[in-house]
Amino acid sequence: MSRIAPQALERFVERLLLDAKVSPDVATVVSRVLVEGDLLGHHTHGVKLAQGYLKDLRNGQAKGNAESLRIVRQTPAAVLYDADYLLGPYCVEQALDFTARAARTFGIGVATIRRSHHIACLAAYLQRYTEQDLIPLVLTSDPAVASVAPHGGLDPVYTPNPLGIGIPTGDKPILIDVSMSTITNGLINKTHQADGQLEHAALIGQDGQQTRDTAAYFATPPGAILPLGSLEFGHKGFALGTLVEALTAGLGGFGRKDGVRQWGAAVTVLTFDPAFFGGVDELKAEMDHFVGACLDSRPRVVQNPVRMPGHAGIARRTKAFEQGLELPEDVLAALRTAASEAGHDYPF
Amino acid sequence: MSRIAPQALERFVERLLLDAKVSPDVATVVSRVLVEGDLLGHHTHGVKLAQGYLKDLRNGQAKGNAESLRIVRQTPAAVLYDADYLLGPYCVEQALDFTARAARTFGIGVATIRRSHHIACLAAYLQRYTEQDLIPLVLTSDPAVASVAPHGGLDPVYTPNPLGIGIPTGDKPILIDVSMSTITNGLINKTHQADGQLEHAALIGQDGQQTRDTAAYFATPPGAILPLGSLEFGHKGFALGTLVEALTAGLGGFGRKDGVRQWGAAVTVLTFDPAFFGGVDELKAEMDHFVGACLDSRPRVVQNPVRMPGHAGIARRTKAFEQGLELPEDVLAALRTAASEAGHDYPF
Repeated sequence: MSRIAPQALERFVERLLLDAKVSPDVATVVSRVLVEGDLLGHHTHGVKLAQGYLKDLRNGQAKGNAESLRIVRQTPAAVLYDADYLLGPYCVEQALDFTARAARTFGIGVATIRRSHHIACLAAYLQRYTEQDLIPLVLTSDPAVASVAPHGGLDPVYTPNPLGIGIPTGDKPILIDVSMSTITNGLINKTHQADGQLEHAALIGQDGQQTRDTAAYFATPPGAILPLGSLEFGHKGFALGTLVEALTAGLGGFGRKDGVRQWGAAVTVLTFDPAFFGGVDELKAEMDHFVGACLDSRPRVVQNPVRMPGHAGIARRTKAFEQGLELPEDVLAALRTAASEAGHDYPF
Repeated sequence: MSRIAPQALERFVERLLLDAKVSPDVATVVSRVLVEGDLLGHHTHGVKLAQGYLKDLRNGQAKGNAESLRIVRQTPAAVLYDADYLLGPYCVEQALDFTARAARTFGIGVATIRRSHHIACLAAYLQRYTEQDLIPLVLTSDPAVASVAPHGGLDPVYTPNPLGIGIPTGDKPILIDVSMSTITNGLINKTHQADGQLEHAALIGQDGQQTRDTAAYFATPPGAILPLGSLEFGHKGFALGTLVEALTAGLGGFGRKDGVRQWGAAVTVLTFDPAFFGGVDELKAEMDHFVGACLDSRPRVVQNPVRMPGHAGIARRTKAFEQGLELPEDVLAALRTAASEAGHDYPF
């Protein structure tokens, strides 16, 4: 197991992006956000993605120049961007910066991005804003992909449609990054390349049976991911997936109806400034009380006490800065391939 | 089975509220929202609640005068209210009206209500705004109640923390009203009064086992409701419950830390005006496409085709206006008791 200094990894990914003619400010943000994904432990949504981003830059399916991000419509508290498939992390951070400024004036800001390229790990965006005592919220769907079945159905129609939110507390922030489906596309792909057996029966096959076997997902006709709540309570996960679909592709007015075929994202971000509501200190005191009550709840399994969302990731991040970042073999292989495809030496 | 005209039911509930010295505008909204809950089929959150509301009005734990709703802090797009336990449906509708006006100017509006009394059925608020081509969103928690365990824990810490959102389409709106837990307190109480066996194993007992038996919930020490996602994927439901907790009690700065003991709600509502984003027609076209794809997904069970959230409720509502509203026996019993406790004749 090799350990890589996070800063060195960031510089390496940034170098690959710059050599692919990505604007310096875009390359800086994208490499930082990708490495941040790995630091928090989301290895399917970290630097592993660089290979695909670089490939799409080469074939014109992703843009690298910052000017691709264009404002279509704007009020002091809301903005609609069209990104023309600019690399997503830069778009999302620009959008969050807009909403943070709006929130400082109005208490709330919202931004929608249509035709973003892929936006990587939602958790990776949040601490920049929780450190400013703001609450950032990110929602996304990918109109080009159909992998989740509606509750009661067999055919895949929409995407896992994740949601990320950062919540300041008096101590470590709460960092939430969850999909509205049982599992993500990234986990299916990774598992299919390994032994093909998921930990839980998160899929539905065309025979109508729940299954752990990823082969059902890749069959013809294909299986699908179950909504969060599975067969019993999947109407709730389906409803939440519909919410994300409506507030991203629906609000942006660009999505599945437009027959999109290329890798990308419909995104909506919101930021709340608690200073305009009950106050920053009161928010933190309330959340500290809530975190305390959750951690005091007796564990079902003694070895696995209750953990707050994001706290394991934050601990992992601290350790990586002290001891270097450990990356799984599939991530290292993707990095090596990315370097080789770009005609670069692989430095780690 | 008796059938009641919805208008007659609304007038009856309004009469009971007026006799309890509730302001006329408050009585009108509360009776309309309660009946709307039943019309959409949410009988645990409809007129059955009137008995409890009237009881709390009599003992001073609920307020009926409109002036109890006070603005604490305000920007053109955001407002914090303190409701001093005014009946919740009036507070929520005032808050949604504020956010709808803000959304017509800025694209977005947000309002937080602390110390609201109970707010009934979230789905009941939505059509008033979807009919204006807006997207209303309602989040709520009750700081006085602990019924859901955090993922991995045994002890109840927070509430089902539901979320409601209305989404305009070219046809019937999508009306979402789902909790972030497997089931609600209302269903447990109702089931416990019947045979005590839930349809699914939605509870966790103090022995760490999942169970359908409501006796586990009412044991000493008590069991708890599992987060949405149950044992396998409950970290997602717990994260979503935490989101609702943060955006309601956290944002309002008033909640569990304050040792609240009386029935009530922390509430946050948002409204989006799609005209400031991709446009109303584009939103509707995108959602129509999505609804079509969902309904086209082949059903797992042929007799149970895919249904969009809220569409069964809208059909029920239409039928109730044509044929009268059918209320379950427990609702009729609660209405009879409410009338008797208020010294009124029961007219149905």
